[in-house]
Amino acid sequence: MRHILNAEQFTPAQLSELFEGANYFRQMDQKIATRREIMQRHFGRIMLSMFYEPSTRTFHSFDIAAIKLGIKVSGSQSASEFSSAAKGETIEDTVRVFNEYGVDAMTLRTKNKGEADIAASVATIPILNGGDGKGEHPTQAALDAYTINSELGQLHNLNVVIGGDLVNGRTARSLAQVLSKFPGNDITFLAPPEFQIGDDIKAKLDKTGTRYTEMNTLDIDAFGDADAIYWTRLQLERLGDTMNKEEAIEKQLEFTIDAKTLKVTPEHAIIMHPLPRVKEISTEVDDDRRAKYFRQAGNGLYIRMAMLDQIMNDADVRG
Amino acid sequence: MRHILNAEQFTPAQLSELFEGANYFRQMDQKIATRREIMQRHFGRIMLSMFYEPSTRTFHSFDIAAIKLGIKVSGSQSASEFSSAAKGETIEDTVRVFNEYGVDAMTLRTKNKGEADIAASVATIPILNGGDGKGEHPTQAALDAYTINSELGQLHNLNVVIGGDLVNGRTARSLAQVLSKFPGNDITFLAPPEFQIGDDIKAKLDKTGTRYTEMNTLDIDAFGDADAIYWTRLQLERLGDTMNKEEAIEKQLEFTIDAKTLKVTPEHAIIMHPLPRVKEISTEVDDDRRAKYFRQAGNGLYIRMAMLDQIMNDADVRG
Amino acid sequence: MRHILNAEQFTPAQLSELFEGANYFRQMDQKIATRREIMQRHFGRIMLSMFYEPSTRTFHSFDIAAIKLGIKVSGSQSASEFSSAAKGETIEDTVRVFNEYGVDAMTLRTKNKGEADIAASVATIPILNGGDGKGEHPTQAALDAYTINSELGQLHNLNVVIGGDLVNGRTARSLAQVLSKFPGNDITFLAPPEFQIGDDIKAKLDKTGTRYTEMNTLDIDAFGDADAIYWTRLQLERLGDTMNKEEAIEKQLEFTIDAKTLKVTPEHAIIMHPLPRVKEISTEVDDDRRAKYFRQAGNGLYIRMAMLDQIMNDADVRG
Repeated sequence: MRHILNAEQFTPAQLSELFEGANYFRQMDQKIATRREIMQRHFGRIMLSMFYEPSTRTFHSFDIAAIKLGIKVSGSQSASEFSSAAKGETIEDTVRVFNEYGVDAMTLRTKNKGEADIAASVATIPILNGGDGKGEHPTQAALDAYTINSELGQLHNLNVVIGGDLVNGRTARSLAQVLSKFPGNDITFLAPPEFQIGDDIKAKLDKTGTRYTEMNTLDIDAFGDADAIYWTRLQLERLGDTMNKEEAIEKQLEFTIDAKTLKVTPEHAIIMHPLPRVKEISTEVDDDRRAKYFRQAGNGLYIRMAMLDQIMNDADVRG
Repeated sequence: MRHILNAEQFTPAQLSELFEGANYFRQMDQKIATRREIMQRHFGRIMLSMFYEPSTRTFHSFDIAAIKLGIKVSGSQSASEFSSAAKGETIEDTVRVFNEYGVDAMTLRTKNKGEADIAASVATIPILNGGDGKGEHPTQAALDAYTINSELGQLHNLNVVIGGDLVNGRTARSLAQVLSKFPGNDITFLAPPEFQIGDDIKAKLDKTGTRYTEMNTLDIDAFGDADAIYWTRLQLERLGDTMNKEEAIEKQLEFTIDAKTLKVTPEHAIIMHPLPRVKEISTEVDDDRRAKYFRQAGNGLYIRMAMLDQIMNDADVRG
Repeated sequence: MRHILNAEQFTPAQLSELFEGANYFRQMDQKIATRREIMQRHFGRIMLSMFYEPSTRTFHSFDIAAIKLGIKVSGSQSASEFSSAAKGETIEDTVRVFNEYGVDAMTLRTKNKGEADIAASVATIPILNGGDGKGEHPTQAALDAYTINSELGQLHNLNVVIGGDLVNGRTARSLAQVLSKFPGNDITFLAPPEFQIGDDIKAKLDKTGTRYTEMNTLDIDAFGDADAIYWTRLQLERLGDTMNKEEAIEKQLEFTIDAKTLKVTPEHAIIMHPLPRVKEISTEVDDDRRAKYFRQAGNGLYIRMAMLDQIMNDADVRG
């Protein structure tokens, strides 16, 4: 069973295979004739898509990825409110029912960490984790890695600045783990002390010998030799009473990327963000050639096509 | 017009035809080649699916049933909140609009008893009642009957224990009515006095000469010669002030099926539940060969395929 | 780029082309064989449908229109609650992401006036405005014009009574503008003074030389030489403290169309309403031959098919 549950599970070889798939599907999507060809590829296959938490990008890009592969979708974008979960049903029971519906995959976004694993433990069909609360978001990690690889041509020997909220942001944490699987990377974690990267991640980096630095203020020098900047929103509301409102606004402004940042950022570097963005990247960055966050979101579509394609190919082998 | 509005409307002959259809579609669904064949069966047909109340199983199994027959679906899982009903439109007006959209069937779950009948009274397309409040849930009744027939080979001369909430549970009431259409059945209604089966159902059983017993405590002897056990959740919150919280918890535990129940239940018997289940069937029952509630939910898919297939065949005859 | 943003943008020639398209698709929809033919027309095309405000008719008729043209849909009927908008993302960012998903059109209903224009300003795909708050609802205007043209054979030299809420009802305002593009029309605006038509619309009518009269009471004589009556709901809740509840109810009754209205309405006239209707058209009007509001809603399906067809044909030309 090829569940997709966490970022850790991807080997460099598997990522490489996914990247190739994504490249292929992106190319086939450019012309209507080839798009039609792909849209017949998995005719007969069905995906359930159950989202128990809000999502735009993940829900619709999985939806469109399936559609573009000829997979039919039965989906719920508001499963927590309009499904049996509201009546107290466990995720295990929900999955056991869906096991019976003759579908070929189940995409799941859940409220609580670990629920994707629970689902997989009782599923007879592949589970794709579309985010389990503060837990994992493996398809985001794969598309982030794909974006770096597409834009920079490699995933090793890179200087990567990962900034913003490294405590609550699962995407920042996942990216660090993925980078640690490739040699020669050097990560700068740039965040206020309250939002700095966790000891668990640092332990993993130590284990693989990945170099990293922690910086607690947005020092513009951090960007001077960056190959990639991965920026996320500071979730100041989680600081509680340790900061008053004026301080919070000032702190937020302190961790904003803008035209000044662009000036010191190398020409070849790329700027990424998992989105949605609020104000932590100024819109004056949007038209810069190095801003890749919308392209990055689009990469999510093609990476998810590559994943679904593998899963449906597996199903074909089983018959 | 072949509306599906209530459990009463099914004759034994019609049920038998549905069971055959469900068997056929289950079989064709096992291999991708035959699944693809069925998925072209009703190309060109469209179903509207309007759910004004929460649902997982009914919504998605109708959705998937349509998909598997090649019927396209335009659906709303949260129609009460995001549709014109919120602006004060009557169900009649909503249906009259949908009459104009050139669709071939309309699946409907409504808040209030009787609304499916109202919808059918103005519809020029077949209405499938997916549950009208405390009223009817005919596709559930059909899948329950199908499950008994599939597992036990017959729907007559059976000892059936129907337990839990027989006041608010429309599925328990419907099943009793369906069983009364076949000779030789003997029903035990097992529920606290506050949740016992209604006089209207008893009158119908009397009329057809169906034997029944009422038991007000969960006496384990009730299961000793059961062929089928149909269990439902006790909706204790509806008891109001007649019971304090501790009593309620104890009452709930009293009406739970577990390993002890399994010991006295015959080897050939089956245990059913309309789901969602909260705690009234202990998870220690799940792996027992006699536990059929997940299979039962899966049967809902194939019964609904059989119903939709009949309706679309009718449409083909009309041209 | 063929965005559909406002009622103003339609020239008489464009409306005429849309009416022809709508007629064609209505005809092809009558038989299953021709419906199947149309359902293969735009295979390979995908539409995103994002609704940030409640809708039944607009959402489902766009959905079904796409389905009937062979266009696949990825849709959200509750985007405001279950999407990234809830996390503070701007509409511009949302659209820039969807630009990357390789879809061919985006249907949008937004909360605030002007958001469809904002979306179009950053979109690389055609935007179809499905209603932007109190702003525009161009597909409704087109279907209203189509209904008049279909039923009366022309859009010029007509006496049209437009009544109800002419302040908050964008459909009434749009219809007046469309009528002003054709010669010889004479409009009677029938509304309480608080709900009368705005000076902006009157200025436009003056500019094109379209005759109009304002009436502040429902004088039954207004209907005596009407060719079309376009009725809308009086949104009395917007009057605030200027009226007590009893007065409001009486005012509502004063602006209700019923059997008495039918008696003075010419035999050839038609009665329209954008729906949902609450009580401002008595149900005793529904069975009258002149009541066209349900047919009018159905016309929305075919007008939207005509629009989507044009957009997808454009996409084919671009390749």
